[in-house]
Amino acid sequence: MKEVSRVVQFSTKNKGKYEEAARVAASHGIQLVHLNVEKYEIQADDLAMIARVAAEQALKDPSAWAIVAEDAGFFVNALNGFPGPYSSYVYRQLGVGGILKLLQGVDERGAYFASAVACCSERGTFCFEGVVKGNVSLEPKGIHGFGFDPIFIPDMGDGRTFAEMDVDEKNRYSHRAIAFSKFCEWAKSSL
Amino acid sequence: MKEVSRVVQFSTKNKGKYEEAARVAASHGIQLVHLNVEKYEIQADDLAMIARVAAEQALKDPSAWAIVAEDAGFFVNALNGFPGPYSSYVYRQLGVGGILKLLQGVDERGAYFASAVACCSERGTFCFEGVVKGNVSLEPKGIHGFGFDPIFIPDMGDGRTFAEMDVDEKNRYSHRAIAFSKFCEWAKSSL
Repeated sequence: MKEVSRVVQFSTKNKGKYEEAARVAASHGIQLVHLNVEKYEIQADDLAMIARVAAEQALKDPSAWAIVAEDAGFFVNALNGFPGPYSSYVYRQLGVGGILKLLQGVDERGAYFASAVACCSERGTFCFEGVVKGNVSLEPKGIHGFGFDPIFIPDMGDGRTFAEMDVDEKNRYSHRAIAFSKFCEWAKSSL
Repeated sequence: MKEVSRVVQFSTKNKGKYEEAARVAASHGIQLVHLNVEKYEIQADDLAMIARVAAEQALKDPSAWAIVAEDAGFFVNALNGFPGPYSSYVYRQLGVGGILKLLQGVDERGAYFASAVACCSERGTFCFEGVVKGNVSLEPKGIHGFGFDPIFIPDMGDGRTFAEMDVDEKNRYSHRAIAFSKFCEWAKSSL
């Protein structure tokens, strides 16, 4: 593998997201620096569009030369994709209990997490996406991660929820790790 | 009352909102014209901020001299204010049934609708707000209005839901009518 030593800023207010992404990037020889600035997110059904607008706003910081922003969502099939792009708001208002209550008596438990990473630099804005499929558990389990991790069991795992996995294990499967890996592969040859 | 004949554009994709607002404005001698253009909404907990950004975007249309935009939300006390600023998204994904399911077994049924109208013109951007308090019904009733109207019983009414009232009757109580009335009073002396 070609040795690279690049620094990219990741604009996010979520420390858990930053930690997951930084480990993925480090494994590709890219250093992610946490950029915690106020920005607004647009309302849209398209994660890539939300991430793109966030990254382009953040690039207005004149000290930055390449910035990534990420938007992620938890999509529950039986709820028509809810909470989707509004997952962090819904998590704050209803918690995992709200999703479990909406699924009471519902047999179809399929769900997925999706992530869109947008990188904005002088070369333009490029987006990279990752998805992980799985099911909503019957009750919350685990203490790691954040958001809806305690109720999501990825298909590729052994039946445990994301919140029952430490960061490195979650990164073997997660939507965010997939999207950031794609970004890093691109960045190594293109940035 | 001073006779005025003013035309103001209302930027919205929701025809029901336009019809309610246009009647309120007409009763104040102001003609609201429906402006149906693509715009993005920001994600924020503050309705006035969302309306303000929407109005300021719409004013970029060079033919406009004064534009109003409105953001409204349905805030359920027992759900920590959910769905709030994301009411239209939540309505599309979960419908009124989702709110009723989240409130199953919950005695506290208090809720309110809030509206923020932002007017953007050469004079700057000004916001006007309206709130109507009430309760979430046990089941949906009525065919008028839109969104969560079938499950909202305003305190000032006679026990019927907003969806059991025609536009003129809803306008006697509604958050939107209150906010647009404040706007119109201001517009008559200031625009």
